[in-house]
Amino acid sequence: MLTLDRVYHAAYTLKNVIRDTAVIQAPDLNPEADIYLKTENLQITGSFKVRGAYYKISQLSDEDKKKGVIACSAGNHAQGVALAATANGIKSLICLPDGAPISKVEATKGYGADICLVKGVYDDAYAKAMELKDEMGYTFIHPFNDVDVIAGQGTIGLEILEQLPEIDAVIVPVGGGGLISGVAFAIKSLNPDCKVYGVQSEGAPSMYMSLKKEQIVNLDNVKTIADGIAVKTPGDNTFEICSKYVDKVVTVSDDEVASAILALMEQQKMVAEGAGAAAVAAAMFNKVDIKGKKVCCLVSGGNIDVTILSRIISRGLLSSGRSLTIRIALTDKPGQLEAVSRIIAGLGGNIVSIHHDRYDLNIDIVSCILDLRIETRDHEHIEAIVNALKNEGFKIVE
Amino acid sequence: MLTLDRVYHAAYTLKNVIRDTAVIQAPDLNPEADIYLKTENLQITGSFKVRGAYYKISQLSDEDKKKGVIACSAGNHAQGVALAATANGIKSLICLPDGAPISKVEATKGYGADICLVKGVYDDAYAKAMELKDEMGYTFIHPFNDVDVIAGQGTIGLEILEQLPEIDAVIVPVGGGGLISGVAFAIKSLNPDCKVYGVQSEGAPSMYMSLKKEQIVNLDNVKTIADGIAVKTPGDNTFEICSKYVDKVVTVSDDEVASAILALMEQQKMVAEGAGAAAVAAAMFNKVDIKGKKVCCLVSGGNIDVTILSRIISRGLLSSGRSLTIRIALTDKPGQLEAVSRIIAGLGGNIVSIHHDRYDLNIDIVSCILDLRIETRDHEHIEAIVNALKNEGFKIVE
Repeated sequence: MLTLDRVYHAAYTLKNVIRDTAVIQAPDLNPEADIYLKTENLQITGSFKVRGAYYKISQLSDEDKKKGVIACSAGNHAQGVALAATANGIKSLICLPDGAPISKVEATKGYGADICLVKGVYDDAYAKAMELKDEMGYTFIHPFNDVDVIAGQGTIGLEILEQLPEIDAVIVPVGGGGLISGVAFAIKSLNPDCKVYGVQSEGAPSMYMSLKKEQIVNLDNVKTIADGIAVKTPGDNTFEICSKYVDKVVTVSDDEVASAILALMEQQKMVAEGAGAAAVAAAMFNKVDIKGKKVCCLVSGGNIDVTILSRIISRGLLSSGRSLTIRIALTDKPGQLEAVSRIIAGLGGNIVSIHHDRYDLNIDIVSCILDLRIETRDHEHIEAIVNALKNEGFKIVE
Repeated sequence: MLTLDRVYHAAYTLKNVIRDTAVIQAPDLNPEADIYLKTENLQITGSFKVRGAYYKISQLSDEDKKKGVIACSAGNHAQGVALAATANGIKSLICLPDGAPISKVEATKGYGADICLVKGVYDDAYAKAMELKDEMGYTFIHPFNDVDVIAGQGTIGLEILEQLPEIDAVIVPVGGGGLISGVAFAIKSLNPDCKVYGVQSEGAPSMYMSLKKEQIVNLDNVKTIADGIAVKTPGDNTFEICSKYVDKVVTVSDDEVASAILALMEQQKMVAEGAGAAAVAAAMFNKVDIKGKKVCCLVSGGNIDVTILSRIISRGLLSSGRSLTIRIALTDKPGQLEAVSRIIAGLGGNIVSIHHDRYDLNIDIVSCILDLRIETRDHEHIEAIVNALKNEGFKIVE
């Protein structure tokens, strides 16, 4: 059973293993509230998952420890279990679908786990893990629906109350519900006046729907850039705890999550993964009532592929007017390219890439096409450049 | 005069103004050493500069405070002075060259400063600042060559010794030398056995050269992505302190700095600017002797434009084999594009962008050109894809 004593015991057990991550003020994310970030993205392994995994594994009997543990995950849970098992001096085996990103596989190996790549998708890897567990006597470490795992995640709640004694509300990302179950239980037990809000992705609203319908809902498919919280079905334990202790679960869109990732990088100098930025997105876009309140957003993890980060930056720059891609139809006479360059440079635009194509079936046979990517200041700056080009007689292709 | 008492006084003065930034272990940056990061990129204003600026301003006479302060900077010093002046309830005016990035100007305004945009480059803005100082009686806040500013930066040295009592060496980025002067003075005064190393950019080695020649060297021009430490001439105070207290200054290349920025994002989930990553670059690339030692790298700031960050990610991905741009000459018959796509997908490559051009003067008139950007796993993966394409008869254009 989940008790406050068990959460305190987890905190005691974890004391010399994990980082007591800092709480950092984030004044510009939403000027209407006093926002703080609990930086679990700076936790060892890059996510909070190591807390629950470590506490769970530390509580196994010596006999079970000898046999080792097994888990099924392509993400933060895998790395948490791997590190926790190694730190407890026991063997771990992680089943992953064979399409899992190489970087995640390598990281999990790096923490000392053995890897079992299973042909197929997550469900196939899960079936294989169950089979191996029965065959070999491994203990299966569930990513969220386990009381010890939940107690481990609950230690974050204790830390937040210690770091921010006068907190009004805590906002927590929700996948299967293990993190918010622990945090909400700890916080509501000690300070019932503090609100606890959950955030899911619009593309994976399993706990959101389940709480709304007052019964566990199973989604057929989930799709979101916040892959760490893309869970089809909440656990029965986590559903029950959330029903009792969580004030409200809301959803955010992928675009809102992307904006939050960008804001965390620009304003807070921190890298967050999609799930890690979900609570920040909820605060930025006023999904819950935080006006005038002292609020803590839990930034749950930072394990995001830099190629995806690069794409999010590009998308964020486009949407905030700091980047412009433009296609101009030129008549194929000398000096045209020079004229375009001069106009753009004169207005302070910085041409980043250029593609000059002399033949395009879409347009008049004598013309040629110029594709440009330009660094700009804002939407007004873009308008000024586009207008200047039009005024000089250049034809912008939509 | 710089005394340890003055550094302690600065620490006392700053206590409720700045963040006592965390020290975070970074086990993967260089496996041969035990590396920690002092995270001044997570400092308010995104850099350590606010420490020196605040202490300096707090020590002004009431009369001087009434008149206000002036500074000349397009970077972190400007934001530090602006915030420090506002927090002390006094006026600040920042002179910047008119080409300064809009984002920096806006951030400085945001901290409450008035802005004076000066036509020309840094030297012109500096001349204007001097003129206005004389005319209006403002106090000029020097970015590095001032004893109170140095004492303020020295508070970082006190914090490092408290956070890491058994530290063997501290590595500090060096521009004008204000930061390292304060840190080296504090650390050597309290723990003479701790080494203090400075790091400059290869493209702006003014302190490096000055210490080597044992006299202040003035560089004609400086060029580096670490713009925060691109300083042509050290101060006389900082030169003297560095000569006495710094063990060694080394240099790093722009590519090394870029690799450090990428490693900090991927491994530590933190955003650092070029100057901020310089000490990490020195540790990663063994520029100083840290084998088997407990080392603290000072990450001095995180104010980097995300467009530049995006370019650094791209460059890092290319150099580590995680991105491939390739140009293929196709004979212009049907099904070619499909065949190329099939080969790449079959090997697990992910095509990110494609440009198909039917006319190019460089090659045979009947051919057409296909430009591809592909996400790859590593250099071996790239080789496999390129070989498979060649084996199927496709011509790669170099």
